[in-house]
Amino acid sequence: MTMARRINLNADLGESFGAWSMGSDAAMLEVVTSASVACGFHAGDPMVMEQTLAMAKRCGVSIGAHPAFPDLQGFGRRRMDIPPAELEAMLIYQIGGLAAIGRAQGVTVSHVKPHGALSNMACVDKALADTVVRGIQRLDSRLILLAPALSQLARAGRDAGLTVVEEIFADRAYLDDGSLVPRTRADALIHGAEASLAHVLRMLDAGAIVSVSGKHLPVQAQSICVHGDNADAVATAHAIGKGLAEAGYELVPLPALAA
Amino acid sequence: MTMARRINLNADLGESFGAWSMGSDAAMLEVVTSASVACGFHAGDPMVMEQTLAMAKRCGVSIGAHPAFPDLQGFGRRRMDIPPAELEAMLIYQIGGLAAIGRAQGVTVSHVKPHGALSNMACVDKALADTVVRGIQRLDSRLILLAPALSQLARAGRDAGLTVVEEIFADRAYLDDGSLVPRTRADALIHGAEASLAHVLRMLDAGAIVSVSGKHLPVQAQSICVHGDNADAVATAHAIGKGLAEAGYELVPLPALAA
Amino acid sequence: MTMARRINLNADLGESFGAWSMGSDAAMLEVVTSASVACGFHAGDPMVMEQTLAMAKRCGVSIGAHPAFPDLQGFGRRRMDIPPAELEAMLIYQIGGLAAIGRAQGVTVSHVKPHGALSNMACVDKALADTVVRGIQRLDSRLILLAPALSQLARAGRDAGLTVVEEIFADRAYLDDGSLVPRTRADALIHGAEASLAHVLRMLDAGAIVSVSGKHLPVQAQSICVHGDNADAVATAHAIGKGLAEAGYELVPLPALAA
Amino acid sequence: MTMARRINLNADLGESFGAWSMGSDAAMLEVVTSASVACGFHAGDPMVMEQTLAMAKRCGVSIGAHPAFPDLQGFGRRRMDIPPAELEAMLIYQIGGLAAIGRAQGVTVSHVKPHGALSNMACVDKALADTVVRGIQRLDSRLILLAPALSQLARAGRDAGLTVVEEIFADRAYLDDGSLVPRTRADALIHGAEASLAHVLRMLDAGAIVSVSGKHLPVQAQSICVHGDNADAVATAHAIGKGLAEAGYELVPLPALAA
Repeated sequence: MTMARRINLNADLGESFGAWSMGSDAAMLEVVTSASVACGFHAGDPMVMEQTLAMAKRCGVSIGAHPAFPDLQGFGRRRMDIPPAELEAMLIYQIGGLAAIGRAQGVTVSHVKPHGALSNMACVDKALADTVVRGIQRLDSRLILLAPALSQLARAGRDAGLTVVEEIFADRAYLDDGSLVPRTRADALIHGAEASLAHVLRMLDAGAIVSVSGKHLPVQAQSICVHGDNADAVATAHAIGKGLAEAGYELVPLPALAA
Repeated sequence: MTMARRINLNADLGESFGAWSMGSDAAMLEVVTSASVACGFHAGDPMVMEQTLAMAKRCGVSIGAHPAFPDLQGFGRRRMDIPPAELEAMLIYQIGGLAAIGRAQGVTVSHVKPHGALSNMACVDKALADTVVRGIQRLDSRLILLAPALSQLARAGRDAGLTVVEEIFADRAYLDDGSLVPRTRADALIHGAEASLAHVLRMLDAGAIVSVSGKHLPVQAQSICVHGDNADAVATAHAIGKGLAEAGYELVPLPALAA
Repeated sequence: MTMARRINLNADLGESFGAWSMGSDAAMLEVVTSASVACGFHAGDPMVMEQTLAMAKRCGVSIGAHPAFPDLQGFGRRRMDIPPAELEAMLIYQIGGLAAIGRAQGVTVSHVKPHGALSNMACVDKALADTVVRGIQRLDSRLILLAPALSQLARAGRDAGLTVVEEIFADRAYLDDGSLVPRTRADALIHGAEASLAHVLRMLDAGAIVSVSGKHLPVQAQSICVHGDNADAVATAHAIGKGLAEAGYELVPLPALAA
Repeated sequence: MTMARRINLNADLGESFGAWSMGSDAAMLEVVTSASVACGFHAGDPMVMEQTLAMAKRCGVSIGAHPAFPDLQGFGRRRMDIPPAELEAMLIYQIGGLAAIGRAQGVTVSHVKPHGALSNMACVDKALADTVVRGIQRLDSRLILLAPALSQLARAGRDAGLTVVEEIFADRAYLDDGSLVPRTRADALIHGAEASLAHVLRMLDAGAIVSVSGKHLPVQAQSICVHGDNADAVATAHAIGKGLAEAGYELVPLPALAA
């Protein structure tokens, strides 16, 4: 008898704001095992956080903070130059704000995953990655860092002694250096449930990122990132979860992986 | 031999924001024994919080969260109608954000004092006071509530089982019902260090708020609120601290009072 | 031969913000003859304004500013106490910002319609209504004020010499005093295209607001407010426009009414 | 008889926000002949704009818009990546908002000067400079562009047919390529009234930027930028104004230069 291989399925949720709704959080929380929740700087507000965490709790989904640059109108997608000490404080504040919302309802924030431009920049800029890691570690060194596989961010976390879980993207193609194919290219996205599931399983089986040219870059990806922007995306996420289970994977929250 | 009577001296600090400076925080932290620090909704930002808490730590000043309505441009002084559940979440988020900034440098946030219009409204509106208290209690029932003496807010806190410390204002005159003389009246403010100190000592000696008409309203005020808006205010605050010590009071942080 | 009676059909549009989409603006701009466009304080941003005005221009829809309290997270629906001089400046800034976006593409902002809590408050508070009117008039006395029929706001505009167009709501029932049935009551909303059209025609034929009890309050409503929050709302708006045309009304932009 | 040579003296003003005060606007408006006023995105709010323009009007100081990136907490000093079409709309909105505040009190906004990181970036990035210029021109091609001498921004404005006035900085040293000595260098700033005045007169006499190494870069600078951050800065600005007058220069508002 072999043990089921454990894998995590994560999505970015709680991205509504005030009167504006975004994403299919309720549906996605039925699919994923971990959710990274917006902390109010690029999306989310205290009420949205409260409701997202309440739903996640009911679904047994583990929670992470999804901190970002302070840029609501730009959804945290615009590059900003923020001095390291200030960025560190911003991260700590955001994680702490969300953690308090969680604590008030008995939910623990167990991981951190930077959002948008902050994540993109920290994935290739060692100094920025170190800043992010230092912020997390100063607040609580037990927090798990969820970071893209092969990124500077993942490396910085490990080097600093954080528990790092590396993720791969179900719907994004990879270049030979392990970075994502830019969205400007026609082959950036993997379309449809079947292709996405195949993409994920191929990489998990290989224990490697498989690039568009077929190159294998060994990684220990333990989490799959899925999206729930629309009905199709939710269906795809659902199919990936189902397909992983059928392939013998046990889908678990991040803390179960790290334990 | 008699034990010194313990009293707390508090001020609202950390109200700078970005490029804008406000108040004389460094000077005030030499005077007060507790500081209520802005949490980013009406003033303050993560960097300001970090710096304020670092200074407070060096001075042995205990820290409280000073949450407010989400109104930066109005400095939290404008009345807003926010649904109770949403306000509760806003309070929890703000306290949690500041607490995280504190935790990252080994500083505990030990009290909560609502700011501005939120405080004014919660002091006379039982439902709103209950909302504020519920937010605090859901987050951490060990948090001390610092509230104006005789207010609905203080009462709501006590009724709910929170540790409540009631404060009186060194520079504000009181009406016969225990509320502050409105700023629109000529006699609203107590001017100068000597008059403010006399005002405070008269009330502490009487164990009562002493109104402008001379009426005594028994209270157990254990904290004196002072301001540091300008050089005069800092000098006044300093004189009050000195005068209290000379009158035999021991100035202590809030947790020492509540212990 | 009789001239067609002219009527205006208006909706609040341009309420998306950054990454968040709201409403069916493209579809609604095919239906209405005037649009009140969010100015960035409760919704909208410069890019959204630019795109909304470009679409409106193509559709021959006249444009108004839809200024609000500075409350993005609350969508301008929360009551706020803002000093008159400051509110006046806020209104002027918002109208001017939108007007500039319009001017850059050859579109004129021809009317102003306050949004949300600001409108609700100005409809019953003469002093606030006067403040709103003064802001509009100081900026450009040729701006048309679009205001709910029988409101203090409409009256204040007329008293000050502004061109005022009074609107009635296609999907809201009225009380005997001419105010809207509160949304907390079961009979607040008129449901469906047929009932809404009948409601509108009954009031236009009567030259009066017809309350839920059947009371007639004479008004000279020249504009019908419709909504486009979802597919049903758009269909209803479309049916109302079609029904009005079939009933012999000529649907015109606000400036054509005021000419 | 020779005509007095005309020169403009400008400062960035109106940078207070809500409860936070910044700068010595009243004093500076006695010194300068043109003011660039914050438009609410990095500083300023409608009430501050109203008050600043009222003071400027009384002093006969001409007004410009000082638009910026949408970054209040960072005071518009942080680099941001904003798509050109969106940035253009942001500039138009800001200029229009301020212009409306002006119009309501009979004050014309006659120039535009980008602020902070936006200005720094547009001074060296031709594409961004073109975007800024296009925004100004689409709104009102009569607006004067006030831009640093020798910058890409000044060139883009001239190429597009805008009236451009080039400014030099009274308190900043220049490198051999005409750019400012970075603030990180010890010789970045010119200290004191005497040295600043000498720096300015040397450059005006030479008809050139004179770099720290003594290199002359011919420019037709018609405006001197001064600052009013503190009492010293105001005194320096005052001394520069006085010194220019004594040297035979006539200090005039920007529209008088451009006429």
